[in-house]
Amino acid sequence: MLEASRRWRRDGLGIGLVPTMGALHAGHLSLVDDARRHNDVVIASIFVNPIQFGPNEDFARYPRDLESDADLLRRAGIDAIYRPSVEVMYPPGSSTRVHVSGVADPLEGAARPGHFEGVATVVNKLFAAVEPDRAYFGQKDAQQVAVVKRMTRDLDSPVEICVCPTVREADGLALSSRNAYLSPDERAAAVCLSSAMRLAAEAYASGERRPAELRKVLWDRLQAEALASVDYAEVVDPETFRSPGSLAVLAVSIGKGAKKTRLIDNHDLTRPFPG
Amino acid sequence: MLEASRRWRRDGLGIGLVPTMGALHAGHLSLVDDARRHNDVVIASIFVNPIQFGPNEDFARYPRDLESDADLLRRAGIDAIYRPSVEVMYPPGSSTRVHVSGVADPLEGAARPGHFEGVATVVNKLFAAVEPDRAYFGQKDAQQVAVVKRMTRDLDSPVEICVCPTVREADGLALSSRNAYLSPDERAAAVCLSSAMRLAAEAYASGERRPAELRKVLWDRLQAEALASVDYAEVVDPETFRSPGSLAVLAVSIGKGAKKTRLIDNHDLTRPFPG
Repeated sequence: MLEASRRWRRDGLGIGLVPTMGALHAGHLSLVDDARRHNDVVIASIFVNPIQFGPNEDFARYPRDLESDADLLRRAGIDAIYRPSVEVMYPPGSSTRVHVSGVADPLEGAARPGHFEGVATVVNKLFAAVEPDRAYFGQKDAQQVAVVKRMTRDLDSPVEICVCPTVREADGLALSSRNAYLSPDERAAAVCLSSAMRLAAEAYASGERRPAELRKVLWDRLQAEALASVDYAEVVDPETFRSPGSLAVLAVSIGKGAKKTRLIDNHDLTRPFPG
Repeated sequence: MLEASRRWRRDGLGIGLVPTMGALHAGHLSLVDDARRHNDVVIASIFVNPIQFGPNEDFARYPRDLESDADLLRRAGIDAIYRPSVEVMYPPGSSTRVHVSGVADPLEGAARPGHFEGVATVVNKLFAAVEPDRAYFGQKDAQQVAVVKRMTRDLDSPVEICVCPTVREADGLALSSRNAYLSPDERAAAVCLSSAMRLAAEAYASGERRPAELRKVLWDRLQAEALASVDYAEVVDPETFRSPGSLAVLAVSIGKGAKKTRLIDNHDLTRPFPG
């Protein structure tokens, strides 16, 4: 991969990287589109990164469909797909981790111990393998974006982190590979996330600034949904992910019993909710 | 720095990096010489890295003499010196660390908590700032070499780690910037490190393979020195830094009271001790 990438660089071409775990949807393709607009060469990586999943998470059943993914990427005009194996990425004896503290600690970091260390480590490795000029991430994973930006700055990586808006279904549900886990009932219930953020944005637009009140708007709407259990729903600063702030961030499990699907979403309350 | 380095790379030149903390001696200059033999361009970095010093260590009084260092490097034929400030390397809010477990845990890692995390982090940053083809380290810091090699492999850094032999005084004392701390009496006592390793290498050459016996040879000689207090003296595997193995590794404090100087050294017992 690095050889190809360095050949392109020697030819003076700008290189964009779109890191993915596959199971591609229109959100990923919007990253590819944006990357194509600002780079001569666009490379997508597909790697379901085991070290960013907790022991009780969905690594094994995470959706994988390489053929369909490759087909989508080809049609989107990608120049190369980097698809390392787990054995290549984490051979026996490998023991180095990139750890970001601060922004990586609360919310997703607290709910998923080790998750952001896994993300920071693999992104570092992908950057080393591709040496891109720019890398594309979705705003959907807002805290991941903040962690990757922090890491990139701290480690002097010469990679520009580009963030693309969340792509949503007509009813507001953010696209996610994990939406595939939802039954029809659960899919209907999942609208509570976008709905809660819409209500909070309306409250903000009407002048509400009290953190506890904005938070209450989120919780009230989410708790009204019988199939939803709230992991967190906060309004935080978009750089530190600590309260107070104006970024609504949610993690909500949809479903009953063992087969719940955990969804995350976020919205900048200073802007109207789209749609 | 990166701009200059990428210009050289675009011109097809191979780039060698010699990372140092300054206070240069003939050991550093041997790294520069080796780098010049195998690279078109040689860059030395000078940075006394605060995060690899413990709170009770010698960061503040570590010897610094930029003019003399720059002069030595110029005369050694260096092409550029990279000398970032602490503020540039660790601006307020920076919070990312590269952590290597396993090889970084015992011996120096146990004696100096956080030391190798500081080393791994700064080496990663220096690699990002210079993008060298090769980087040069002294065998004197054997465990550091093992940690940097592990990190480089694990993070897919496209940098070849080159290790140069320890440079020694006539009596066997390994060159170290910290030798400057030694009083004449302490300097005389410091020969116990090389002397202990010489005896262990002789024992090994005579057929001694029992780990406990080889270790005893080291300890007996070190403990015979009144000004020495042994931190560790072990015979370990040179990749894992766990016993058993054939690499003698020592950390010995020389002196009395608060102003002790901690020296480290190592020797591969399968080879005769030089000199």
